[in-house]
Amino acid sequence: MSPKITTELLKQLRQVMKNPRYVQEPVQAYIVPSGDAHQSEYIAPCDCRRAFISGFDGSAGTAIITEQHAAMWTDGRYFLQAAHQMDSNWTLMKMGLKDTPTQEDWLVSVLPEGSKVGVDPFIIPAEQWKRMSKALRSAGHDLVPVKENLIDTIWTDCPQRPCKPLITLDLSYTGVSWRDKIVALRSKMAERKVMWFVVTALDEVAWLFNLRGFDVEYNPVFFAYAVIGMNTIRLFIDGDRIMDPAVREHLQLDSTLEPEFKIQVMPYGSILSELQAVGAGLSPKEKVWLSDKASYALTEAIPKAYRYLTPYTPICIAKAVKNTAETEGMRRAHIKDAVALCELFNWLEKEVPKGTVTEILAADKAEEFRSQQKDFVELSFATISSTGPNGAIIHYKPVPETNRTLSVNEIYLLDSGAQYKDGTTDVTRTMHFGTPSAYEKECFTYVLKGHIAVSAAIFPNGTKGHLLDSFARSALWDCGLDYLHGTGHGVGSFLNVHEGPCGISYKTFADEPLEAGMIVSDEPGYYEDGSFGIRIENVVLVIPAETKYNFKNRGSLTFEPLTLVPIQTKMIDVNLLTEKECNWVNEYHQKCREVVGAELERQGRHEALGWLLRETEPLARVQ
Amino acid sequence: MSPKITTELLKQLRQVMKNPRYVQEPVQAYIVPSGDAHQSEYIAPCDCRRAFISGFDGSAGTAIITEQHAAMWTDGRYFLQAAHQMDSNWTLMKMGLKDTPTQEDWLVSVLPEGSKVGVDPFIIPAEQWKRMSKALRSAGHDLVPVKENLIDTIWTDCPQRPCKPLITLDLSYTGVSWRDKIVALRSKMAERKVMWFVVTALDEVAWLFNLRGFDVEYNPVFFAYAVIGMNTIRLFIDGDRIMDPAVREHLQLDSTLEPEFKIQVMPYGSILSELQAVGAGLSPKEKVWLSDKASYALTEAIPKAYRYLTPYTPICIAKAVKNTAETEGMRRAHIKDAVALCELFNWLEKEVPKGTVTEILAADKAEEFRSQQKDFVELSFATISSTGPNGAIIHYKPVPETNRTLSVNEIYLLDSGAQYKDGTTDVTRTMHFGTPSAYEKECFTYVLKGHIAVSAAIFPNGTKGHLLDSFARSALWDCGLDYLHGTGHGVGSFLNVHEGPCGISYKTFADEPLEAGMIVSDEPGYYEDGSFGIRIENVVLVIPAETKYNFKNRGSLTFEPLTLVPIQTKMIDVNLLTEKECNWVNEYHQKCREVVGAELERQGRHEALGWLLRETEPLARVQ
Repeated sequence: MSPKITTELLKQLRQVMKNPRYVQEPVQAYIVPSGDAHQSEYIAPCDCRRAFISGFDGSAGTAIITEQHAAMWTDGRYFLQAAHQMDSNWTLMKMGLKDTPTQEDWLVSVLPEGSKVGVDPFIIPAEQWKRMSKALRSAGHDLVPVKENLIDTIWTDCPQRPCKPLITLDLSYTGVSWRDKIVALRSKMAERKVMWFVVTALDEVAWLFNLRGFDVEYNPVFFAYAVIGMNTIRLFIDGDRIMDPAVREHLQLDSTLEPEFKIQVMPYGSILSELQAVGAGLSPKEKVWLSDKASYALTEAIPKAYRYLTPYTPICIAKAVKNTAETEGMRRAHIKDAVALCELFNWLEKEVPKGTVTEILAADKAEEFRSQQKDFVELSFATISSTGPNGAIIHYKPVPETNRTLSVNEIYLLDSGAQYKDGTTDVTRTMHFGTPSAYEKECFTYVLKGHIAVSAAIFPNGTKGHLLDSFARSALWDCGLDYLHGTGHGVGSFLNVHEGPCGISYKTFADEPLEAGMIVSDEPGYYEDGSFGIRIENVVLVIPAETKYNFKNRGSLTFEPLTLVPIQTKMIDVNLLTEKECNWVNEYHQKCREVVGAELERQGRHEALGWLLRETEPLARVQ
Repeated sequence: MSPKITTELLKQLRQVMKNPRYVQEPVQAYIVPSGDAHQSEYIAPCDCRRAFISGFDGSAGTAIITEQHAAMWTDGRYFLQAAHQMDSNWTLMKMGLKDTPTQEDWLVSVLPEGSKVGVDPFIIPAEQWKRMSKALRSAGHDLVPVKENLIDTIWTDCPQRPCKPLITLDLSYTGVSWRDKIVALRSKMAERKVMWFVVTALDEVAWLFNLRGFDVEYNPVFFAYAVIGMNTIRLFIDGDRIMDPAVREHLQLDSTLEPEFKIQVMPYGSILSELQAVGAGLSPKEKVWLSDKASYALTEAIPKAYRYLTPYTPICIAKAVKNTAETEGMRRAHIKDAVALCELFNWLEKEVPKGTVTEILAADKAEEFRSQQKDFVELSFATISSTGPNGAIIHYKPVPETNRTLSVNEIYLLDSGAQYKDGTTDVTRTMHFGTPSAYEKECFTYVLKGHIAVSAAIFPNGTKGHLLDSFARSALWDCGLDYLHGTGHGVGSFLNVHEGPCGISYKTFADEPLEAGMIVSDEPGYYEDGSFGIRIENVVLVIPAETKYNFKNRGSLTFEPLTLVPIQTKMIDVNLLTEKECNWVNEYHQKCREVVGAELERQGRHEALGWLLRETEPLARVQ
């Protein structure tokens, strides 16, 4: 991996930073954040501006370019990668280290008096603008919006913004029509006394209209905004994809409808001017609801007194609670996914000893088996296929330079998932194709105990996920071990594999309480630098729990695993399990046998069925 | 309990709200917060202004009086009490209920346009002022500081501010001289580049100077402020108590000292003008460190650009980590406390069946036994002595109207503690003097499992206490039960029984990580309205834990119980305990026997020793 040479690019950028064609007054610094205009986690190639200007293409990082300096802030996952990908024009700012200045502090320390700092107001979230702006102002500088993105002005071979065809989802997949979703949204708006709701997150637009797209890899979304009024619906979307008859019919664009359900389709780029018109036309007490993560540009379009900002939108919260059609779809998707993984692991078991299977080949094979399943659309994220020491790199993705061959002497960790039309999967299994050491089994068993502690937890309605995080760590903690990531994230239903507002992590406190119907991952791990990585991940559904008593009539919740892939018993030190944990494993494997076994049978995959049956033999605890 | 008649008082208050002698312009509303000028949890009688004006004397509540209305905000613990204690002039605002307006929203809804809202700037914390002021301003009103407290102007028989003699603590109690504490504080100040530190919390002043007082019941503190500069020490304190030769010698007031350790004693009331003088004399970049909970008056004395505000002060954090002298003192105090409780429970066991022991008598008897112990000073909080249904009232304190007689048919809950010169105690035991029902035993055992889960927890250095809270609830949750309070609070060393910055609660996220030497309570419970209450509370010391492995060299921590009072085995359903839990109980009781037994022997308390031995017989699990 050789660094990108950025001398010329930086020179060009510094020129446009002073060019009156793009900036009213010269800016002494220009900020290039990671995200797109929708604050997406995964972004399209045309939005990879930070990677273009710096060479560093990790998922998180902010570049700031001044007349003299170019600096990149990123976190511990990416220190090495960023250092490799950037040339000597760049200074790496290692976030989380004590001596690393914040972006604000650094700017204040390097800028001449009374400087202007520019940023694309569409890319920076309003809350971040506010913080940065305040800090700069108190030091005598100004944060200014630069309308035209300065990177785009110098990015001559910038890829086009994707505009791929849409797919429509009928009621059998979504359970609720877009019309009923609009009705529910308007009732939430009425409750909060807001007149308008602005949909800025791509997965929220997709969910609301029961449409999916392919504009961003792994996330079945499309570039669009929506503005929902009490009597109007405006959808901002480009391309002739809206001319597709199936889409037109789905959205009832050509039908005679009550005016409040008539969708006005407008160009993607007109969102700002339309929102400004909404903002200008507001009567006193008419509020506009936006996510506090919406861009500064859109937030500013609404005068401050009329804004109603919340960390989670009503769509985000409604989307998180899956209805019966969605949970049934997720169940189906997970059964198909399990079939594919049984095939894969059966194949690996035969092939690995030959020494011909690399991490990339294993990942490709996993995709191949998944793509054989009904309604397969694409992967839900880049497969983490890692063996031996690569397994300890939590966000590893095999590339030719690092591609390692699987062997009977190393632990193999596969974290992968797919988008099916009926659901999204995300599963991690850690396997040994030879004989694991006692130490490897010990660590695996602690991770398994943590996985079970969360999966089998019973907790009151209203409990936030972060209160369950320690359950996943307790067995590791007892032995002085731990893992440095959260335990779980929300999972979309044929949508983003990471979604809010719930999760299981020590890091968040602002998560929304878990509710029956929410879907999260349960994925504790243990990683030993330079040696191996272990993670056991199921996607689990929050369900009501039956309990002996019912304090204050609050009701209780627990989890039902949707993922039904055997957990390798060879890796378990049974004597470290309690009776309850041992029963959990056996019952889980019994369910895998029954449910996935039947599907393997139906699909005539007898060899994989044999593998499943072998792998799900009950554990026996020595008393 | 009949309500206080407040018609005349409110009339008088409304007059002074318009009286130019006290207010520059009339105020249309006046806020009466709960606290004192030091944001103390426990306050002196002269500071009980909210109770004076309303009749409601619970520990939490804010009164707001307008020309037309008088309203009281308090939380769920006090809805009943406040309703009983206030007359019909008052509207009770039940905090935590969905339809209850915030103080700001309510003010905005009732005030005429352009109103002024007054508050004593010494009583309102700066952060609260900021929030309230912003909300009022955005609705066209003004929050204004009213220098003279308006309640004081109409409170004709207001008690005097206490000014009781001080006691000095030598190195054998404190481990560190006040001089060394000043040195350490100045080094923290230098680290953060601040020139001044303002000590506003009473327990922080007491801790810093190794002095204790009696100005506030249960909390061994005295009214004072301190301002520490890099070369000066100013102590603001009233009365001739500073003329006491022991105090003068302790503070070296008459010795020849390096100027930077010379304490300037100033009148308590001169803090504001002195701080204003400090504020006026600052050079650029000279910062002044204050708690963000300091009063608005003191915070405003320092120009905004010079303020350095933190949620926890360096004293708060240093005070929380006990040194060897302090932990040894705490151990001694807890042994003496256990002796007193063995005496008490032995006495109760004999007396309760006679039907002559009331809750108040039991509480008095507990105090009597404690007062027989060496270095006993006072109780550390009002004893919660509650039997049967009274036990379900979490913050119950027996009064003649509610005083119930203990019997062999009801569960008895005693939550009590004392201040000894060497340490502070806080212990809860739940006892049955007859035969508990299977259900009572079941609930008690779940609470015990929670208590043990926290007490025996092993967790990495740097873990915040709130991450342990769910451990205490897991066994209850499994059966659909829970308790509606946090699991633990920090405990002072011969200081406040509740202190920051650590604790174990699902409610906080801003707690500081647990460190070896910190002391917290571990007190899960279960409460059944109208029937009984169960709580098992030990004070525990954070200590390093030995673990098999040591991930990232972080080290691990666990707890050592300082409280050594038997947990009633009669209440335990042994079959619900795991082997590990059973061993924990037996080892705990073995330690009670050895340590407290030896002290009972030494004190010649043979009957109580007999009780201890009977109560600490090992549990046997049926396999």
